[in-house]
Amino acid sequence: MTVTPRGRHAPVSEATTHRLSLLLRCLRILDGEGVGTISSRLLEERFGMNSAQIRKDLAQFGEFGVRGVGYRIPVLRDRLRGVLGLDRARIVVVAGAGNLGLALADSRNFNSPPFRVAALFDVDPAKVGTASRTGIPILAGTDIARQTQALGAEIGVVAVPAEAAGPTAAALVAGGARAIRNFAPTPLGPFRGVALKNVDLTLFLDGLSYLLAASEPAPPAPEP
Amino acid sequence: MTVTPRGRHAPVSEATTHRLSLLLRCLRILDGEGVGTISSRLLEERFGMNSAQIRKDLAQFGEFGVRGVGYRIPVLRDRLRGVLGLDRARIVVVAGAGNLGLALADSRNFNSPPFRVAALFDVDPAKVGTASRTGIPILAGTDIARQTQALGAEIGVVAVPAEAAGPTAAALVAGGARAIRNFAPTPLGPFRGVALKNVDLTLFLDGLSYLLAASEPAPPAPEP
Repeated sequence: MTVTPRGRHAPVSEATTHRLSLLLRCLRILDGEGVGTISSRLLEERFGMNSAQIRKDLAQFGEFGVRGVGYRIPVLRDRLRGVLGLDRARIVVVAGAGNLGLALADSRNFNSPPFRVAALFDVDPAKVGTASRTGIPILAGTDIARQTQALGAEIGVVAVPAEAAGPTAAALVAGGARAIRNFAPTPLGPFRGVALKNVDLTLFLDGLSYLLAASEPAPPAPEP
Repeated sequence: MTVTPRGRHAPVSEATTHRLSLLLRCLRILDGEGVGTISSRLLEERFGMNSAQIRKDLAQFGEFGVRGVGYRIPVLRDRLRGVLGLDRARIVVVAGAGNLGLALADSRNFNSPPFRVAALFDVDPAKVGTASRTGIPILAGTDIARQTQALGAEIGVVAVPAEAAGPTAAALVAGGARAIRNFAPTPLGPFRGVALKNVDLTLFLDGLSYLLAASEPAPPAPEP
């Protein structure tokens, strides 16, 4: 799915937004070090990024490079934040306080501005009323729609077992979530007006095995 | 990075391998239900996939569709398994037995054939010698290289804190891992001859906020 955020540029693919996110992270690191400009070549050397791909991606959003100098980091960083919709706060709720939900909610990457994880939900009475390691409250899984609305959450994360994923996503949408990230091991159907992305953990291994296969001879054909 | 596995087809992007993985999952579900053939249109209706994209992706690997009938599921499934390098067993080790490492190792998606998670590693003496919920042994984090080699692991997963990620990845590579999936919140540099993929959990939210931004007016310009 490609869309045009705010009519400011041509739609870009999810692969591109992933690369832009990674680039933005690198720019933040450099900015924190006081670096003012950087070339795509140095981005490749330092962070292992593909400099040609960087230039191609950025060309879609205007002219950022200065010949012989490189990219002006604060300018590029702010522009990427706008493109990625990161120029305003976003409340997130995570349904499921198992290992995955807790790992996400307590991650300093996941729960970091402009995103704020406001609550976890779980159906386990022993967990409800407690908090995660970093202090995120765990609320009742029966209360998802109401709490999602009360918290003003725009993004709902589904980290529950497969059999609970459908009703959980529906409750998040009922509570006003306009974007759903589904980590449950089952694809969820589309919801009208909701950006839905399924994440299959297997993909992380499948992608690697594809690369491993590149360096291997074909397996022997099975006996007829 | 695009490569040509086993010289059997043109190289495809990671975005394509992700889509093929999702398609393969859907085919497994259908096969389990005894369905023999399916059209791209029905794949779209049932699983929310993009039928035009499916046809385009599959066209790279040969002719699978039968006009008026659809795709023959067992044939397509076996071909995709070959393309994705899933036609042989792959041993995986997960470094870091925190919430994320445990979530991955105990996931029935992540730890499923042809992948087998053979061990977790952790530096916490209270965890070493125990096992995860699904019975995966937690071994000493000081022993990564030796155990990775002993287990014959091809894939290493880094799920440790940022400050430990570099040495952990190096130990996995020293033990013979040829592919690394890094979930730590820091990019890892390239290792020669090793397929390395960094996963930034923030990407899952950035991708959604990009979609959210599509339906929003541009934020007001800051005061000069």
